Amino acid sequence: MSEISIKFPDGNVKKFDQSASAKDVAKSISISLAKKAVSAKLDGQLVDYEAPLNHDGAIEIVTADSEDGLKVLRQSAALLLKSVLKSKYPEIRFGESSADDEGFYVDTDKDDGQVSVDQLEELASDIAKVVKAGESIEREVVDKKEALKRVDGDPYQTQLINEQANDEVVFYKVAGNSVLGDGVQLPNLKSLKHFKLLSVAGAYWEGKSSNPMLQRIYGTAFNSDADLQADLKRRQEARERDHRVIGNDLDLFFVDPKVGAGLPYWMPNGATIRRTIERYIIDKEVNNGYQHVYTPVLANLNLYKQSGHWDHYREDMFPPMDMGEGEELELRPMNCPSHIQIYNHHIRSYRELPLRIAELGMMHRYEKSGALSGLQRVREMTLNDGHTFVAPDQIQDEFKKILNLMVDVYHDFDINDYTFRLSYRDPENTEKYFDDDEMWNKAQEMLKAAMDDLGLNYVEAEGEAAFYGPKLDVQTKTAMGNEETLSTIQLDFMLPERFDLHYVGSDGEEHRPVMIHRGLVSTMERFVAYLTEIYKGAFPTWLAPKQVTIIPVSEEKHGDYAEGLRKEMAAAGIRVDVDRRGEKMNYLIRDAQTHKVPYTVVVGDAEVSDSSVSVRKYGEQDSISKSSADFLKQVLDDVASYSREE
Amino acid sequence: MSEISIKFPDGNVKKFDQSASAKDVAKSISISLAKKAVSAKLDGQLVDYEAPLNHDGAIEIVTADSEDGLKVLRQSAALLLKSVLKSKYPEIRFGESSADDEGFYVDTDKDDGQVSVDQLEELASDIAKVVKAGESIEREVVDKKEALKRVDGDPYQTQLINEQANDEVVFYKVAGNSVLGDGVQLPNLKSLKHFKLLSVAGAYWEGKSSNPMLQRIYGTAFNSDADLQADLKRRQEARERDHRVIGNDLDLFFVDPKVGAGLPYWMPNGATIRRTIERYIIDKEVNNGYQHVYTPVLANLNLYKQSGHWDHYREDMFPPMDMGEGEELELRPMNCPSHIQIYNHHIRSYRELPLRIAELGMMHRYEKSGALSGLQRVREMTLNDGHTFVAPDQIQDEFKKILNLMVDVYHDFDINDYTFRLSYRDPENTEKYFDDDEMWNKAQEMLKAAMDDLGLNYVEAEGEAAFYGPKLDVQTKTAMGNEETLSTIQLDFMLPERFDLHYVGSDGEEHRPVMIHRGLVSTMERFVAYLTEIYKGAFPTWLAPKQVTIIPVSEEKHGDYAEGLRKEMAAAGIRVDVDRRGEKMNYLIRDAQTHKVPYTVVVGDAEVSDSSVSVRKYGEQDSISKSSADFLKQVLDDVASYSREE
Repeated sequence: MSEISIKFPDGNVKKFDQSASAKDVAKSISISLAKKAVSAKLDGQLVDYEAPLNHDGAIEIVTADSEDGLKVLRQSAALLLKSVLKSKYPEIRFGESSADDEGFYVDTDKDDGQVSVDQLEELASDIAKVVKAGESIEREVVDKKEALKRVDGDPYQTQLINEQANDEVVFYKVAGNSVLGDGVQLPNLKSLKHFKLLSVAGAYWEGKSSNPMLQRIYGTAFNSDADLQADLKRRQEARERDHRVIGNDLDLFFVDPKVGAGLPYWMPNGATIRRTIERYIIDKEVNNGYQHVYTPVLANLNLYKQSGHWDHYREDMFPPMDMGEGEELELRPMNCPSHIQIYNHHIRSYRELPLRIAELGMMHRYEKSGALSGLQRVREMTLNDGHTFVAPDQIQDEFKKILNLMVDVYHDFDINDYTFRLSYRDPENTEKYFDDDEMWNKAQEMLKAAMDDLGLNYVEAEGEAAFYGPKLDVQTKTAMGNEETLSTIQLDFMLPERFDLHYVGSDGEEHRPVMIHRGLVSTMERFVAYLTEIYKGAFPTWLAPKQVTIIPVSEEKHGDYAEGLRKEMAAAGIRVDVDRRGEKMNYLIRDAQTHKVPYTVVVGDAEVSDSSVSVRKYGEQDSISKSSADFLKQVLDDVASYSREE
Repeated sequence: MSEISIKFPDGNVKKFDQSASAKDVAKSISISLAKKAVSAKLDGQLVDYEAPLNHDGAIEIVTADSEDGLKVLRQSAALLLKSVLKSKYPEIRFGESSADDEGFYVDTDKDDGQVSVDQLEELASDIAKVVKAGESIEREVVDKKEALKRVDGDPYQTQLINEQANDEVVFYKVAGNSVLGDGVQLPNLKSLKHFKLLSVAGAYWEGKSSNPMLQRIYGTAFNSDADLQADLKRRQEARERDHRVIGNDLDLFFVDPKVGAGLPYWMPNGATIRRTIERYIIDKEVNNGYQHVYTPVLANLNLYKQSGHWDHYREDMFPPMDMGEGEELELRPMNCPSHIQIYNHHIRSYRELPLRIAELGMMHRYEKSGALSGLQRVREMTLNDGHTFVAPDQIQDEFKKILNLMVDVYHDFDINDYTFRLSYRDPENTEKYFDDDEMWNKAQEMLKAAMDDLGLNYVEAEGEAAFYGPKLDVQTKTAMGNEETLSTIQLDFMLPERFDLHYVGSDGEEHRPVMIHRGLVSTMERFVAYLTEIYKGAFPTWLAPKQVTIIPVSEEKHGDYAEGLRKEMAAAGIRVDVDRRGEKMNYLIRDAQTHKVPYTVVVGDAEVSDSSVSVRKYGEQDSISKSSADFLKQVLDDVASYSREE
């Protein structure tokens, strides 16, 4: 029998019999390690713990509590789910299954009605029984012919087998069912005690909408109940913050994949929030010297050839429209070339600089359908965009002005959880960047000096700059834990060259300006998603779609008073309704709280007699009585204070 | 010699010799008619007055003062222009020429620099000399071979000759030049005394941008100097109102045909006007029970197949974008299907009706390039759109509500010059319309009753309704005299069927709503063009891009006071600037008037000492002194009164 050479992490190499398993190797190190281990990686690939290694390689032992150990645990949970499903529905078909640091899923397809969320508890109990019964997992390797026989016409499994490169197909047999392998398995099932089946959702086979929709069952598993419970709690909290869930509950927006994935419809509630933000940001920018414009979303493709977007960014762009006679129109992926058009429409003087052009600019980017998510990742978006054209020696001052404006805006929205990241070019590879050493050095110094001047904390990232200049990004995290860029300030030395921009200096000569791309609050889509998450849907008064709900105790006796109050408040610009449904008082108050209305006002005999209101603020338990005039003033003050803490 | 039969307008038929001319026929009626006449129409076609008629037909004599007489006069003016051009530039090439009720034009092409506007006076004087010299026009008919020889390689004339159906090519010889015929000519040139060469502009050969650009010379001609002067005055007034001219002078917008015909860029000044209108109209609508939304400009083409737009409106739509896997995305030509998506997102109850969905909805329509004009006719536009979903018995009330809102909006913009047109289906051809007799009859009655109730004047147009329902249009005229629809209210019985819309009635059953499409102020593009014309660029204070200009007599002595004033006004939301250019006072005041700034304020020693301002209102000659506090109040009152007369 031949031998194999196994290299250990410390660099030592040892010979083993070819039939030796990872477990044998682990034992050769220490018995206690062999006990804690559930798998191993051979040359970086996970392998079944007790299966023959068969060939040479570098080994790493995988213990149960490692990230890879958790992955194996979840792969076994997925396997057991398939097995119990097969016992229950012998005709069931399986699509993809997968496990990662978030959990696992199994795609299923059935003729007589799909698996539903109601069945998850029963399926979980079936899995627990298999574990409790001490069943083991048996590994079998068969050839493709035998494999195809085993999956018995299941079209997805048949395709998966046919697509496999070699002829050795792995099956795992557990609880009487032989299941096509999809990732290595636990050596025994004892540790599979702390798992949870979470939810079901539709998922297209291979992620393509032209393919059949399968039912995806999500679950997770851990090595301890404490870990599982902590994860479930985290999920619950994320769900409470998830803008897609809140967006549906509060009727903010929806996406209809039949009419267009990544193309959200803003319902009146969401539109009110967005409009309030748009007006706020435009007013803020205009007061800070920005000139707002409207520019077309369509342009001749040549504009994006000249800007370089077509060469470097094409895969994110929509296909050009052929208009005949050689004209191709393109939906813009960015607004910069449009603002360059504005700059170039006149001869510019140094007296006009910094020239600040801003727009709520609609753009289109063809994000992959798998990346789309509610308002966070979309294909049509409106960016709070702005471009400042400066003389090179104005970079530092203008950068500070933008930063101050940004921080001011964050305060107004009560945004506190973010980090600044300053990105430079890679000093080892300066040839990879726009060629102007002096400009790069000067500009990077100026950005750093500005951050230091303002006393802001930041991290520096060498090699993270764009090709065309250094930048500052403001990073935040979504409820789902993904990092997102909330704001950005990017210097650009390249576009002024490409579009031959200039201004007439005080010397009467033509000079090249520098462009600064900047977005304060990202796209309206992403920003509303972000705010929904940080506020958990309880929008501050100035943003709330409905700010005040007035409930008359009796429509007959107090309805007129309520209506008078409503009119007075509406005339002052407050978004206010009278709830005339006449349901039980407690129900109506609870309903206003569910819809996260900032102020719920009840008016009855006492209030009518002394022109007062009984007010309950969202999130508080008690009502406070005050004069209607004081209440009106309170709401107006609240609106005027934005989201700042009182 | 054979004879021809000529039929007179009274029905009589008379025989003439085949060589008889229209003049001979006129003489046979009356000598005085023959003298007044300049041409005739044989079977509706204009013919040269003294040329042989050659065949049978019905005749109408054309006198000099008729519309056709003017056309012949202008065709001769165009001919003479060509002749004098040929005398001056023997190598000149001619494209199209044309004459109509507006004037005439001749397209020219030259190697050594195009004809410019500076040369028009000299060319006009050359034409006058030809007329004064008593030159006559000689008509010649040649075959194509000879014709091609005569135009001597001129590519445009060669093409025109080759495209002619028969082999008889008409030339006219005048002042020694033989010119390819393009319309019949005056019998003598005595009456061509009152003409004017107006302007020159580029025009593509055959109107195609892939063809060479020719230089188009515009002119006009009349039978009397009084008529000519009246027309020139009308042109001057139209030019003073032309939004394209004003749009350039006041830096409101521009179109760059290289980047996209019909795709305007709104400069900061125009954008300020537009934004003010947008905020006004949204607030107005929200206060009138409309729910504003944002919906995507892109949708799956299937949406427009279902709505019927793809079948009936395709030639105005942009080409679909093929996204792969059978998905085609389309830029929407209208917003109705998007608002139907909003309606259909929830089950609707009769309690929610009328449900009013509104949006400033961007749409794309592929207008022909010849139809494009400034902001008036564009390819990307944002419509003040709204759709009300009503129960059938709510039509009359809702229609009245919309009309009242519309008239209220018109008052705010000081719009007075418009007519209402109520369009019904053709009672003789009811089968051409959506099939619901009862609905049509009831709805038409309701609209008429509403108009009468409100005491509004209107014209009724049978057969002018849309296929899907009756409508009301509000018609105005542009500076150029074209009729435009400013607002529209259209009932729609069809889309609720096509999209299977319903609401749950008080009876618990499903019912079909009626849709009302309505636009109060058209698209932002067309409305700003219209307002620019009616205000002649002197926008009322609430809309003016800059509302107040403050001019310090001496920057050193009065600059601080000016700046304090500016800050105070800006904090109150007024768009105000200090003009610090330090030029002569009269120049700065005149400059503010040229830019049509509503208030020009001068501050000097007197004003600083008693906290006052010296104010000159746009269009007035005198300045008035008042306290700065009174002035601030005046401007705020002015803004709050919109465009209504004080």
